[in-house]
Amino acid sequence: MTYQIAILGASGYTGAELIRLIATHGQMKIAALGAYSKAGQSLAQVFPHLRHLDLPDMVSFDEIDFSKIDLCFCALPHKTSQEVIRELPKDLKIVDLSADFRLRDPAAYQKWYGNPHAAVEMQKEAVYGLTEFYRDEIAKARLVAGTGCNAATGQYILRPLIGAGVIGLDDIILDLKCAVSGAGRSLKENLLHAELSEGYNAYAVGGTHRHLGEFDQEFSALAGREVKIQFTPHLIPANRGILATGYVSGEAQAIHETLTKIYADEPFIEVLPFGETPSTHHVRGSNFCHIGVTGDRIEGRAIVVAALDNLTKGSSGQALQNANLMLGLEETMGLMLAPCFP
Amino acid sequence: MTYQIAILGASGYTGAELIRLIATHGQMKIAALGAYSKAGQSLAQVFPHLRHLDLPDMVSFDEIDFSKIDLCFCALPHKTSQEVIRELPKDLKIVDLSADFRLRDPAAYQKWYGNPHAAVEMQKEAVYGLTEFYRDEIAKARLVAGTGCNAATGQYILRPLIGAGVIGLDDIILDLKCAVSGAGRSLKENLLHAELSEGYNAYAVGGTHRHLGEFDQEFSALAGREVKIQFTPHLIPANRGILATGYVSGEAQAIHETLTKIYADEPFIEVLPFGETPSTHHVRGSNFCHIGVTGDRIEGRAIVVAALDNLTKGSSGQALQNANLMLGLEETMGLMLAPCFP
Amino acid sequence: MTYQIAILGASGYTGAELIRLIATHGQMKIAALGAYSKAGQSLAQVFPHLRHLDLPDMVSFDEIDFSKIDLCFCALPHKTSQEVIRELPKDLKIVDLSADFRLRDPAAYQKWYGNPHAAVEMQKEAVYGLTEFYRDEIAKARLVAGTGCNAATGQYILRPLIGAGVIGLDDIILDLKCAVSGAGRSLKENLLHAELSEGYNAYAVGGTHRHLGEFDQEFSALAGREVKIQFTPHLIPANRGILATGYVSGEAQAIHETLTKIYADEPFIEVLPFGETPSTHHVRGSNFCHIGVTGDRIEGRAIVVAALDNLTKGSSGQALQNANLMLGLEETMGLMLAPCFP
Amino acid sequence: MTYQIAILGASGYTGAELIRLIATHGQMKIAALGAYSKAGQSLAQVFPHLRHLDLPDMVSFDEIDFSKIDLCFCALPHKTSQEVIRELPKDLKIVDLSADFRLRDPAAYQKWYGNPHAAVEMQKEAVYGLTEFYRDEIAKARLVAGTGCNAATGQYILRPLIGAGVIGLDDIILDLKCAVSGAGRSLKENLLHAELSEGYNAYAVGGTHRHLGEFDQEFSALAGREVKIQFTPHLIPANRGILATGYVSGEAQAIHETLTKIYADEPFIEVLPFGETPSTHHVRGSNFCHIGVTGDRIEGRAIVVAALDNLTKGSSGQALQNANLMLGLEETMGLMLAPCFP
Repeated sequence: MTYQIAILGASGYTGAELIRLIATHGQMKIAALGAYSKAGQSLAQVFPHLRHLDLPDMVSFDEIDFSKIDLCFCALPHKTSQEVIRELPKDLKIVDLSADFRLRDPAAYQKWYGNPHAAVEMQKEAVYGLTEFYRDEIAKARLVAGTGCNAATGQYILRPLIGAGVIGLDDIILDLKCAVSGAGRSLKENLLHAELSEGYNAYAVGGTHRHLGEFDQEFSALAGREVKIQFTPHLIPANRGILATGYVSGEAQAIHETLTKIYADEPFIEVLPFGETPSTHHVRGSNFCHIGVTGDRIEGRAIVVAALDNLTKGSSGQALQNANLMLGLEETMGLMLAPCFP
Repeated sequence: MTYQIAILGASGYTGAELIRLIATHGQMKIAALGAYSKAGQSLAQVFPHLRHLDLPDMVSFDEIDFSKIDLCFCALPHKTSQEVIRELPKDLKIVDLSADFRLRDPAAYQKWYGNPHAAVEMQKEAVYGLTEFYRDEIAKARLVAGTGCNAATGQYILRPLIGAGVIGLDDIILDLKCAVSGAGRSLKENLLHAELSEGYNAYAVGGTHRHLGEFDQEFSALAGREVKIQFTPHLIPANRGILATGYVSGEAQAIHETLTKIYADEPFIEVLPFGETPSTHHVRGSNFCHIGVTGDRIEGRAIVVAALDNLTKGSSGQALQNANLMLGLEETMGLMLAPCFP
Repeated sequence: MTYQIAILGASGYTGAELIRLIATHGQMKIAALGAYSKAGQSLAQVFPHLRHLDLPDMVSFDEIDFSKIDLCFCALPHKTSQEVIRELPKDLKIVDLSADFRLRDPAAYQKWYGNPHAAVEMQKEAVYGLTEFYRDEIAKARLVAGTGCNAATGQYILRPLIGAGVIGLDDIILDLKCAVSGAGRSLKENLLHAELSEGYNAYAVGGTHRHLGEFDQEFSALAGREVKIQFTPHLIPANRGILATGYVSGEAQAIHETLTKIYADEPFIEVLPFGETPSTHHVRGSNFCHIGVTGDRIEGRAIVVAALDNLTKGSSGQALQNANLMLGLEETMGLMLAPCFP
Repeated sequence: MTYQIAILGASGYTGAELIRLIATHGQMKIAALGAYSKAGQSLAQVFPHLRHLDLPDMVSFDEIDFSKIDLCFCALPHKTSQEVIRELPKDLKIVDLSADFRLRDPAAYQKWYGNPHAAVEMQKEAVYGLTEFYRDEIAKARLVAGTGCNAATGQYILRPLIGAGVIGLDDIILDLKCAVSGAGRSLKENLLHAELSEGYNAYAVGGTHRHLGEFDQEFSALAGREVKIQFTPHLIPANRGILATGYVSGEAQAIHETLTKIYADEPFIEVLPFGETPSTHHVRGSNFCHIGVTGDRIEGRAIVVAALDNLTKGSSGQALQNANLMLGLEETMGLMLAPCFP
């Protein structure tokens, strides 16, 4: 059986990545591509790299007949997404890639995003899309909220450790390095090649990055008490990739065993042999996440590093993995592409 | 049916690219990975990005039982390749990615490569692997010689034009820009990140690049007279991609029509609308080749530009496409991956 | 003596480059920095890399007392520049970095730039700023028009050859590769890191690039007949640098001798030994231009390659070199910085 | 007065950087360039970007008449350096850029570098070359040991804080991101453009990086007790730059004030306004170091970030600054070059 798919916000990078993955999926057909300013343009105009695909032109959302759509990906900016999704048919399966349904608490949403939520009831309905930890709920969900790409990376290393109680909860530091496509296709001076290439810097320093809302929500629920981590992202001169370096207190071997065990059967999470460290180059363009654990020379301290591709495992790959579950398909369909190296 | 595949020279970039492509092929199983200095190492050690694949360790060539292999890819350095292939079973299907069997004339081989050929009779047996133009011969061949990556790119724009007689033969200039992976995984100062990044330069200037041997052989045969083009490659600070800019005399619209017509049914060659120009970014990681034609302000002059990924369409993708033909499989199997952008 | 300098359009890349060079000049003091949208901001806000300099804030142009200024650099967009310069004091020495005063013929200006010139009489007064060829006129000029960065590069290889009559005039091809800073600090999708990095492409193909206006003007005047070259620029994933590959008919040794002789006493033009080729990496951040000549395997054909930094020798360095002449200073003052490699 | 300078190990990146800086110094003349494998080559062959300089060819060390040299820079690999310096005239002023004289304790040297020191008495004589903190000793020294580039960056943020007692000593974490030129001009697979570009990773994880020897020595001496920090370097796809992110306990405003005060009169250290963060792009090619301080959302935690150019302030620029002091010259001579942006 082939499922009919719509993508809203198809002209951004996560939209393009969805199309790239679905192109070799086998049981999904892209029936509609929705866009705002680029409505009316062909896919070849918006994304020349996808010109070989026989896909419909970009249209405005009201031109889409959602009754013929089995599942809709929303790759829209946050705030816009909640307003659009609120108006979609109530029985339409939706995977949202924005930030709008990640936080369950309306007050938390308002705190981190600055505006009251426009679809509070749906906010509660939405299932948090971190596949490996919400698999069963996702399979039954109508609306799944894709996680933040940084939030996913951090959780892959910290969730199992917090859950297993093998690390201290009060001194977790996450130093994250992310590539520029995480900022989307927006025209900002600091995203220009001339400004970014050969330069790197921290941003949202001091605990102001919005993905902290997700960390707080998930880690506190998991620990049964408030957990606040220190999180500092850095912008790196590269197009794809997140490398998260976690500094934790705990016994490194126990940490490695915990991660190895919990991810043993996961198709996309690879825990490296103890003492090895991952590189973003080794997951580029794929849905894989590599994790490495090393003990520090200071006893009782460990370093845990994760690498994934922000556009794939951190966003569109995760979304497709969740969509597969929601449609009752094999979870890995369309996602076994090997990384592109070099 | 699943075919048993061996790859000799699996530790280089074209080897890695073959493994990446075969990973989602469906009807090929990698049964043996042969290497020299890295024999004994696991795939995860040599190429951590392929660690999720359940593949055998690298072995030396004499450890491989070729009687169980249906097709063997040789991704070895030139000169080595002819010596190795000479010793392989005479009924083994082979796709060679080196330069060793591209030139049919032993004297031409010696002129461009500096040594006498060690397997002259096989040199004659080999079919030139430019799929779109040697498809039938390749399907029947036992030994196929992969083309030079630059040679393939230049031929995609020039062969149809020489064949159709729509351009002059005495003033063809090919200015080519190629990414660094074309030079392989060799430890040379000019391939270091610190030496290459932010810098670009011409090399092998003045008609000394070995791929000219292929241009001379193919274009002269096609034209029925000697054709010598001017060809200057440039090294660009990027990992993948070849952009070939051809300067020809001829009527631009006729050139565009010729190319459009000849490639109309080709699955991997996309001729852009007249006046558009391709970018390597739009073919990266894929087997596609984009071609654009523009007329110059000087009447009777045209610019024809082609973009492809040197590791895929220029090398390992071409090799797999040929292997598919040799095994009677669908030509596009494992090759419909969409480009990875951004 | 210290000269008082104003820079209009100080918030762009050529403005920043001027400030960088003047910082160690010794006899120039930046008295005013003029900007539009960034007026009111400090230099540290606009260009954090220049924060160590004790310079005035950006101001709007009408806040500048030009009676105290000895020389004014205009680093404004074309069209804006002519409107601004028209209103400046008539005795103020001006070095314009825009395209507005490069073409002497109002009709040619309108053809290439699409609008009638707003200061036709000043267009005639302006001296073309290619220092090595207009040195005496520049020293006496009040208004000097900086050349196009591509136009400068092409002329450095072609002017002496056309002038000496050692190459054919009807088949000159210039294939140029330029880095992204040449496009300025403008917010365009194709200038984003995610769109440019790892990709390269031709643009303004077919003889439509505006710098052709300069080539036509200068080469035709030099040859005493109409000379029209083929010129195709390519955008390269790097921040600084232009590499111009010229394909000409002529005897390579004669070409090399012509260039070697004419540039023998030039402080910034280095003609490499015959057969060597330049790299943009070797001129990065400096005012030097490296030129290499090679003969082709086809008799009577030669390849001439030039490399320079578009922001320095191609623009702000040239402007400072001209300003030095106009103020009666040593021509090389502030410009002997060695290239920054790696 | 002009001082005669020799550079041993002139064919590496720090050698090239020394030559670049001395080129516009004014009171230094490079009288000899010593090299091993590249002895006999001209500077233009080894570093084409320096071809405009009128400098002697590379020679082997025994060809240099050190009696005519006022100061010698040694830019040799560690271990080699101590063996060479041991044999140099005992009254020759030397600035060593290797790791050989950074650690005062022979046991510590052996622990971190794996071999007994070959010149223990000189190890004791050497002054640690962190200019801002050893200025007086350096001015009187005969032998100055250049610091590690990572070690310098970390100390610029942590020394004043440890010295002033405004941060906790038992939970200091330094997450450092460094560009590839820090690894030198060595032919290693992971330094190839194709392996590094678009990828980033941690290395020497777990407290094994040799620069920890310097941190331990300096911080413990300063605190009067053992101080062991956690330090994890990451390799970033860029050529120049170190960004050090320090996670400390302490009051952010007090930290900012401490740094602002101590560096108030330093010509090269810029402490940004509270809450701003530095970028490597803003110090590239210069001797400046930018430092930013931000408070975390978690009370009592602060993030301190420093950016500098590893080849300049982290190595050759520091060396020249020290040489100026040793020769009684103005400390900033040759070092006021503004950063090269973009």
